[in-house]
Amino acid sequence: MHPLIPPSRVVLSRLVSLALEEDTGRGDVTTAACIPTSVVGRATFGARKPCVVAGLDLIDEVFAQVDPKVRVERTAADGDRLAPGAIAARIEGSAASLLVGERVALNFLQRASGVATVTRAHVDALTPGSKTRIADTRKTTPGLRAVERYAVRCGGGHNHRDDLSSAVLIKDNHIAAAGGVKAAIERCRAYAPHTSRIECEVDSIDQLVIALDARADIVMLDNFDDATVERALGIVAGRAIVEVSGGITRARIAALSALGVDVISVGALTHSAPAVDIGLDWES
Amino acid sequence: MHPLIPPSRVVLSRLVSLALEEDTGRGDVTTAACIPTSVVGRATFGARKPCVVAGLDLIDEVFAQVDPKVRVERTAADGDRLAPGAIAARIEGSAASLLVGERVALNFLQRASGVATVTRAHVDALTPGSKTRIADTRKTTPGLRAVERYAVRCGGGHNHRDDLSSAVLIKDNHIAAAGGVKAAIERCRAYAPHTSRIECEVDSIDQLVIALDARADIVMLDNFDDATVERALGIVAGRAIVEVSGGITRARIAALSALGVDVISVGALTHSAPAVDIGLDWES
Amino acid sequence: MHPLIPPSRVVLSRLVSLALEEDTGRGDVTTAACIPTSVVGRATFGARKPCVVAGLDLIDEVFAQVDPKVRVERTAADGDRLAPGAIAARIEGSAASLLVGERVALNFLQRASGVATVTRAHVDALTPGSKTRIADTRKTTPGLRAVERYAVRCGGGHNHRDDLSSAVLIKDNHIAAAGGVKAAIERCRAYAPHTSRIECEVDSIDQLVIALDARADIVMLDNFDDATVERALGIVAGRAIVEVSGGITRARIAALSALGVDVISVGALTHSAPAVDIGLDWES
Amino acid sequence: MHPLIPPSRVVLSRLVSLALEEDTGRGDVTTAACIPTSVVGRATFGARKPCVVAGLDLIDEVFAQVDPKVRVERTAADGDRLAPGAIAARIEGSAASLLVGERVALNFLQRASGVATVTRAHVDALTPGSKTRIADTRKTTPGLRAVERYAVRCGGGHNHRDDLSSAVLIKDNHIAAAGGVKAAIERCRAYAPHTSRIECEVDSIDQLVIALDARADIVMLDNFDDATVERALGIVAGRAIVEVSGGITRARIAALSALGVDVISVGALTHSAPAVDIGLDWES
Amino acid sequence: MHPLIPPSRVVLSRLVSLALEEDTGRGDVTTAACIPTSVVGRATFGARKPCVVAGLDLIDEVFAQVDPKVRVERTAADGDRLAPGAIAARIEGSAASLLVGERVALNFLQRASGVATVTRAHVDALTPGSKTRIADTRKTTPGLRAVERYAVRCGGGHNHRDDLSSAVLIKDNHIAAAGGVKAAIERCRAYAPHTSRIECEVDSIDQLVIALDARADIVMLDNFDDATVERALGIVAGRAIVEVSGGITRARIAALSALGVDVISVGALTHSAPAVDIGLDWES
Amino acid sequence: MHPLIPPSRVVLSRLVSLALEEDTGRGDVTTAACIPTSVVGRATFGARKPCVVAGLDLIDEVFAQVDPKVRVERTAADGDRLAPGAIAARIEGSAASLLVGERVALNFLQRASGVATVTRAHVDALTPGSKTRIADTRKTTPGLRAVERYAVRCGGGHNHRDDLSSAVLIKDNHIAAAGGVKAAIERCRAYAPHTSRIECEVDSIDQLVIALDARADIVMLDNFDDATVERALGIVAGRAIVEVSGGITRARIAALSALGVDVISVGALTHSAPAVDIGLDWES
Repeated sequence: MHPLIPPSRVVLSRLVSLALEEDTGRGDVTTAACIPTSVVGRATFGARKPCVVAGLDLIDEVFAQVDPKVRVERTAADGDRLAPGAIAARIEGSAASLLVGERVALNFLQRASGVATVTRAHVDALTPGSKTRIADTRKTTPGLRAVERYAVRCGGGHNHRDDLSSAVLIKDNHIAAAGGVKAAIERCRAYAPHTSRIECEVDSIDQLVIALDARADIVMLDNFDDATVERALGIVAGRAIVEVSGGITRARIAALSALGVDVISVGALTHSAPAVDIGLDWES
Repeated sequence: MHPLIPPSRVVLSRLVSLALEEDTGRGDVTTAACIPTSVVGRATFGARKPCVVAGLDLIDEVFAQVDPKVRVERTAADGDRLAPGAIAARIEGSAASLLVGERVALNFLQRASGVATVTRAHVDALTPGSKTRIADTRKTTPGLRAVERYAVRCGGGHNHRDDLSSAVLIKDNHIAAAGGVKAAIERCRAYAPHTSRIECEVDSIDQLVIALDARADIVMLDNFDDATVERALGIVAGRAIVEVSGGITRARIAALSALGVDVISVGALTHSAPAVDIGLDWES
Repeated sequence: MHPLIPPSRVVLSRLVSLALEEDTGRGDVTTAACIPTSVVGRATFGARKPCVVAGLDLIDEVFAQVDPKVRVERTAADGDRLAPGAIAARIEGSAASLLVGERVALNFLQRASGVATVTRAHVDALTPGSKTRIADTRKTTPGLRAVERYAVRCGGGHNHRDDLSSAVLIKDNHIAAAGGVKAAIERCRAYAPHTSRIECEVDSIDQLVIALDARADIVMLDNFDDATVERALGIVAGRAIVEVSGGITRARIAALSALGVDVISVGALTHSAPAVDIGLDWES
Repeated sequence: MHPLIPPSRVVLSRLVSLALEEDTGRGDVTTAACIPTSVVGRATFGARKPCVVAGLDLIDEVFAQVDPKVRVERTAADGDRLAPGAIAARIEGSAASLLVGERVALNFLQRASGVATVTRAHVDALTPGSKTRIADTRKTTPGLRAVERYAVRCGGGHNHRDDLSSAVLIKDNHIAAAGGVKAAIERCRAYAPHTSRIECEVDSIDQLVIALDARADIVMLDNFDDATVERALGIVAGRAIVEVSGGITRARIAALSALGVDVISVGALTHSAPAVDIGLDWES
Repeated sequence: MHPLIPPSRVVLSRLVSLALEEDTGRGDVTTAACIPTSVVGRATFGARKPCVVAGLDLIDEVFAQVDPKVRVERTAADGDRLAPGAIAARIEGSAASLLVGERVALNFLQRASGVATVTRAHVDALTPGSKTRIADTRKTTPGLRAVERYAVRCGGGHNHRDDLSSAVLIKDNHIAAAGGVKAAIERCRAYAPHTSRIECEVDSIDQLVIALDARADIVMLDNFDDATVERALGIVAGRAIVEVSGGITRARIAALSALGVDVISVGALTHSAPAVDIGLDWES
Repeated sequence: MHPLIPPSRVVLSRLVSLALEEDTGRGDVTTAACIPTSVVGRATFGARKPCVVAGLDLIDEVFAQVDPKVRVERTAADGDRLAPGAIAARIEGSAASLLVGERVALNFLQRASGVATVTRAHVDALTPGSKTRIADTRKTTPGLRAVERYAVRCGGGHNHRDDLSSAVLIKDNHIAAAGGVKAAIERCRAYAPHTSRIECEVDSIDQLVIALDARADIVMLDNFDDATVERALGIVAGRAIVEVSGGITRARIAALSALGVDVISVGALTHSAPAVDIGLDWES
């Protein structure tokens, strides 16, 4: 497996600052009233349901900002499958500090792990031995793209383009304005960085043929049923990377990967992943 | 119904800036290559599935930042139930600008509407005529709390406390450190602003009795089954506001509201709401 | 006494960054010209006049940002009364670093201690044994609310609501728009989080009676003289928390607390507290 | 009189954003519950006590950020003396918007006007016809330096150096480290921008003589009594600008200006100016 | 020619804010002293030397932030070649506002136009009819990457990858750690988004052969002389995009493009472009 | 030589954050794919051409933000002249971290050293023994003023005023609006902080005479040829500091300094300094 490199500390630090200001900025009234800062606590982040964990760096960053004297010890690594009861990390330090950071740490961890878990379920649905990638989209939570893309990788998925700037994806509006698929592909090839492949979305076999003739590097088959995907693959015949998108359910993944598509991109990895049930258990 | 006042413009503006920088900062390569800025486009935000819409102000803010010459016209209001095919807003302006803002606007709108729709489903499950509130929790997406709390209101729900600073909620760690329920409640009453009620989580009937004796204003019954909730309500007998939390499914809501609990708080309103299927349809 | 938990490090860090950029960003010309970085200095923050000290965390944060090798040692705690000559903290490190941070550290410390000292004077004016609280208001210095509210607590005072979002306070405009005191209270009770009490400002005995009938949790007697406050307390008879506000002088506090009001809120704690005379004394 | 140019819009905009987020970010619960956005309000900012007004631009900026449809009309100019009852500005627009911005606008206006009013009192205490300047110091509220320095100018005062970077002020630590007054002045003259005068603080007549010999452009007489100031002026004899500082009370200003000192710098202009009593009066 | 889409307004706005705070935040003392705000001025941005202009949007943004009443009228478009005396834009409004924004506007315009002009000189040195691209690198001014990449496009150049995240470029450290060129390319192909081509830097013909065998999409010939480039092109024979980099002088460009390389990347486009001599001429 | 105090850590930290977000925020794809985080690397920043180094603090800050476990060891000091092959600093740590920070560190170092090197060349061109200063201007790279001004000092140059706020510089627009040189100087003297000298730009001997009569502290001879500068110096005769500006080439510096001007200000120190060729060499 490839290394799982999280987003840079600069990015995590800014996200965590925002989240802590949002939740705890002026202080935790209840904790201030009840818990002397000298009281020490210990707690563990434990899975309540099976999941793939992601975002452990965010726990470090949360407590580094709340109270650098809190110790965080990992007992799992991002990308690990956790069974119910498995422990992802332990924290120890001022009980007041643990309480102040608890909710923010959990909100990050549950969401990142949710994305990783949903992704893993899609990846596991691939036909064994398949070379097909499960990929994310730009349908991410505003502000959390870096974290969610990392979580997709933790779940065994791949990333699509970062943003509108980092790669080309031609859709129908571009085609219409440019005066056709061929013109659009040529304009993009002439304009885009040479490091970028040219991807073109097609919504019919006819459009696919034109895109291939214009030498698109990647064709995105939009809302094709399985039979049409199969037909399309025969036409492409290795001349382009084939991505399918739209109307993907987990049930279709085995079939699509068995057909040999290169990439299945799934917005639901990020836009609809439920939070994973990871909780903080205090040791008494 | 109460007015639905969105978060302040200062807050929305900062969120939208972050999201636009994340997705479009250095420019949309594909659109730059294909679409002259003089081409005008028109498109509508339309529901694909039944939903409750929320977050229309974010569409205005996205296009105000991308290109203030884009016109945004609303055809629905936050909180409206949309049937499939119903249109929430129209946008018109430079097609390039519409494409640049499209994804960010949809990401916000789908998420906020997702929260509103899930909330509405919970509210609709209440026993008719019930006074019970469906309330959110602090289990919100990092950075989006203000938007998600607003979306809860758009779905007919209520907000719980903003953050750790704005109200008191005593949990078992506080009780342990303070030396008991009574001590914890007294410490919080002495410390917290007089504008705040004192809420105490209890996990047994015994603890409930102690909390009531210590004159908690709100008791949170944590993971009680329906029968025990009923018993608890008999004991409370109007002396405190009764909130239930933990293990809430939509199926239990009718029963719980029929029993007369005051508040049912549900983390899933925000932590696990799937994106709503609202799309942008271009007019040719 | 309750623990004095300062605002979170995230908040202090941002405030100190702003202040340092404002005062020292491009460098201290005089110090750069005169003082080799190898010269070590030692200095103490000492009270020149009697005061209550507050904001010692800000000294740590200032020097952590200027030069983390500067050592800061506290010889007093926030909330302590300092006699003239008493020392609040010692700093030791590069003399150049001490000079760069000196003014910003003093500006924070003098202001926070100023608020604490004025608050303490008001608290000390309460009738001995009184349960009356001295509380702050939203009349704080823009940008410094978190620090000033903490300083109020250091002076023995209490905080009123954080901001417009964290609690309800009904004033005449709200009453007028809602169509009366009763309607306003009911609308707020239906809308606000259940964790929040409903406070209503009244400017006459007549209005007080209506507010009590509408079951306001807190009534704010606005600009009542002592005799009318006494009359009001008789009418309230324990049915609501009684706050007095407006035209409060230190001279009236004993009388008001003797009458048994619950809260006296005083804008002057924060909007007009003079800086306390704490200076930095260098050890030669 | 010189023109009163306020800080740049970039600076005011950032300050106002911070203040609005601090006070109103997630919304005004009370107003949302009670006041439909269609209700129009009108109100005036009126002086309750005699004062010098400053900071009217901040009212514009507050309402531009809260709701750009609110109209702000000035009926006074920064620097004007207002008698009780005089009106500084009128606002008109959605009553809800006026309420949301009211407190932040007042907090800025009261503080800036407080500084202007205290400054004006010091300026008015100068011997008529005197050329002496009343100047501020770096003892400003963290974050508000630009506003407070402007307010000093509105009160007829002058600004001292902006910050540690923009001018030279040699104090005893610099002298000690540099090896004497002469060395310190020479090092600063060699290092500092040629646009900057060299100011040296002296605490005795002996030190004054040395500073003059080393050709300081400005000498700051620190904590000199009036008689010693007079003696110092005789020694200076026009060879340097003479600033007095430390222990300045309003009572001493007439005497000091009569003696002919050039500059009297007063920390209390900014660090201890009480808020001015300006209120918002609603028109029914 | 392709459209020249500048960086998004969000990005320009933040850059301009930083620059204005840096230069003008607390106000222009000289202008405040001398120029009543009622004085109107008119001025033109005119080329003093031949150049390619870029960055006109930044003029709009500067004056929008300084004073939105200043009118900016363009008389040239980004990418235009200007002869000495040619005018790029006119501004009209409060003379004080023009002076406050002048330097910041010029600093942006001179730098962006400097990059565009240097790029244009490189592009003009290509063999006529050549398909070779002149491309930038990541050697940009910290903070100004978006502006400088846009300026490169204004000069007729192309962009290389945005940043470390948006494309793959394998260098010797990656090869060493991965255990060879083949392993490195395979690891990157497996890991990187499918939208990204795989570029591999080679420093010898031997390494080139291995990279081609491993099916690199792009080979970067690092510091090859012209003869070796020619030999390499023969070996590549269309199997990969050929980029040359390192030791590129304008003098070599004609030869390299005549040989048929696809891309010549030049750090000097951005890291060493002198400011272009564009000045602001006031109309009296 | 005077100490070289870099900009404050607050300033450097913010700059480095921006630059790292710009280049590496979402992660280095190539490094993530190829290099396990356990691989350790060592590398040196070495001069390829003769230069004056500046900005070493930025290396520390870059790696502190990327990975605090990276060790940075300096083998030169800012302001040192480096011969080709000389090493400025060594870094050691995770090879992946070194690669992530490499480009940003180099971009800062090459630019700052470029400014220092150009400045040093100008300073070295002064007539030996001359007291003339080479000074920078406000023609700095937007966002990098603090770094570039520091680099000028590292090259042996001096700083002119920080910004529009920190000193007075009267130009023709000010003169025109104020009604003449005398009026402009008097208005500025009355308005500006007493710590600031009054500088007036003159474009003719006639204007020079008027400025001297009005007792300008500094006269800036704008675009004077050497002969006219000499004549001007005779007229000034020590009554003002003499700065020359405009049309300065390195060739003229010896003559101008021999004539005895006090300050030669040169925009090209910052606006057109090419990056210095410093590279990162990996130790195998």
